Amino acid sequence: MNAKLPLYVTSGEPAGIGPDICLDLAGRVDQRPLVVLADRQLLQQRAEHLAKAVELVDYVGQTEASAVGQLYVQHIPLNVAVTLGQLDAHNADYVIRQLALAANMALQNKSAGIVTAPVQKSVINDAGLAFSGHTEFFQEKAGVARVVMMLATKNLRVALATTHLPLRNVADAITEQRLTQVIDILIHDLQSKFKISDPRILVCGLNPHAGEDGYLGDEEIKVINPVLHRYQQQGINISDAMPADTLFTPEHLQHADAVLAMYHDQGLPVLKSQGFGEAINITLGLPFIRTSVDHGTALSLAGTGLAKSSSLMVATDLALQMAQSA
Amino acid sequence: MNAKLPLYVTSGEPAGIGPDICLDLAGRVDQRPLVVLADRQLLQQRAEHLAKAVELVDYVGQTEASAVGQLYVQHIPLNVAVTLGQLDAHNADYVIRQLALAANMALQNKSAGIVTAPVQKSVINDAGLAFSGHTEFFQEKAGVARVVMMLATKNLRVALATTHLPLRNVADAITEQRLTQVIDILIHDLQSKFKISDPRILVCGLNPHAGEDGYLGDEEIKVINPVLHRYQQQGINISDAMPADTLFTPEHLQHADAVLAMYHDQGLPVLKSQGFGEAINITLGLPFIRTSVDHGTALSLAGTGLAKSSSLMVATDLALQMAQSA
Repeated sequence: MNAKLPLYVTSGEPAGIGPDICLDLAGRVDQRPLVVLADRQLLQQRAEHLAKAVELVDYVGQTEASAVGQLYVQHIPLNVAVTLGQLDAHNADYVIRQLALAANMALQNKSAGIVTAPVQKSVINDAGLAFSGHTEFFQEKAGVARVVMMLATKNLRVALATTHLPLRNVADAITEQRLTQVIDILIHDLQSKFKISDPRILVCGLNPHAGEDGYLGDEEIKVINPVLHRYQQQGINISDAMPADTLFTPEHLQHADAVLAMYHDQGLPVLKSQGFGEAINITLGLPFIRTSVDHGTALSLAGTGLAKSSSLMVATDLALQMAQSA
Repeated sequence: MNAKLPLYVTSGEPAGIGPDICLDLAGRVDQRPLVVLADRQLLQQRAEHLAKAVELVDYVGQTEASAVGQLYVQHIPLNVAVTLGQLDAHNADYVIRQLALAANMALQNKSAGIVTAPVQKSVINDAGLAFSGHTEFFQEKAGVARVVMMLATKNLRVALATTHLPLRNVADAITEQRLTQVIDILIHDLQSKFKISDPRILVCGLNPHAGEDGYLGDEEIKVINPVLHRYQQQGINISDAMPADTLFTPEHLQHADAVLAMYHDQGLPVLKSQGFGEAINITLGLPFIRTSVDHGTALSLAGTGLAKSSSLMVATDLALQMAQSA
């Protein structure tokens, strides 16, 4: 990918830690420009509040990375002033404008990709804006039928067949069609974005013990394994449905490039328990690169200096790495 | 508890690794007798096959631990000879006889407790015997309405509100009554068996993000949190329903004596991913002590010398420790 294209970083909810952690990007040395989407004055105030010596530089198409201590900013104006830690529905569309600009630049091939700091879904909804999350926002902008949420740490990648569904709706959502779409995207993006030519994928069953031969549920027999067997017959390196508590052990994971979990709390607790603040979120299936921090807005930490930027740094590293090999 | 009472160890499925790992008990130095329930000749043959120098000693009520290199055996005769790794329904009731003897001794206060090696549910069922697991077997023998399965490693204890249910049945099984029974048992046994006077318990929500204020499921609001608030009002140190992927991070776990997960694959993958072969299973709510290995029969490893006895050793350690403080 064009080495001069910038990577856009959305600073997210202005009352949370997004602006704080974005300031830490000024300390990086990279091969292409990083551009923070934020209100310039907000960033300036937050830097002063945190006593961080960051020189904000308006981004006007520069093709080189900024110097250490500098941070490129593309100004997105706030509607009203921000109080640390206080959500304000008047600024809800400020967040949406960041995301829209980032998506438009990516779709027009004017950026290397997008990294997102956290937003607060509730305040956006309270403002009357339909918004169910970054992932869905970018999916709609890109006009694709299915995207896949994947979380990653240094040692583990976990993709999810379903994401933010009430648990009682999960079993019915595991259909042949969904699994096929998800696995197609997972294989495609591991190959194209992660440069893993023959990815090895381990798949969790839906039920405890992967259904134990039908004694504990039959979705493995009726839905999941038939889909997996088709991929196996095509030469894809993918497992049968496995018990999640067997699969997530070092013995099995050492042979896997990614795990496909059937639902949120089957896959993410393991990953986050091992992530030590460096887990990140990647959206697969989009026509552009998108990574994200895996944490929330942490309103009570905004402006305190206690927010950790490690997840943002890893998300940025990975987006740059994917852009480099694209 | 009477220091002379023996701890019984059921060797489980004879074609699996149960006999192999039980032989390793001969290397221990303990304060009370350990008695393996198994066919004496089977153990002898397995020891010879594995070239383990173990002297089998018939247990006839000795009150001292056996010497290093010796192993107390209470003979339970096989029905037919065993082929390594080959399940045989003719021996299904051999396994049941081990468990029945262990339960009877415990219920008659003639033992310090029970440690179980793995059994193979399917072959017992194929033989026409109703058996859905060790836990249920001991529950029925003891005549108690509810027991709680808890898995533990050195650093983490995870109790389950539901265990071996198809995922689609989990949400309806999370009722006020069940939660109350489970939490009562958990608190009682952490106090009485683990000597934790004021246990700190973290509770997972049922839904992703613990329902996110009802956006992703309402069982937290309608069922789980009302139960938890009642305990909190009684001064119990128990959390509200928390997102599982937040709860299972070191930051939160360091303040917890136990986690209560709502279902199998929410709680066990994390624990087993960290267990490194030393996770064990404890049944709470029984009138006696019962611990177990957390692994299966590993039929293909029987007699190979590759079976690891670490989980059995930790399960034995814990049972002895609980018996000591009882």
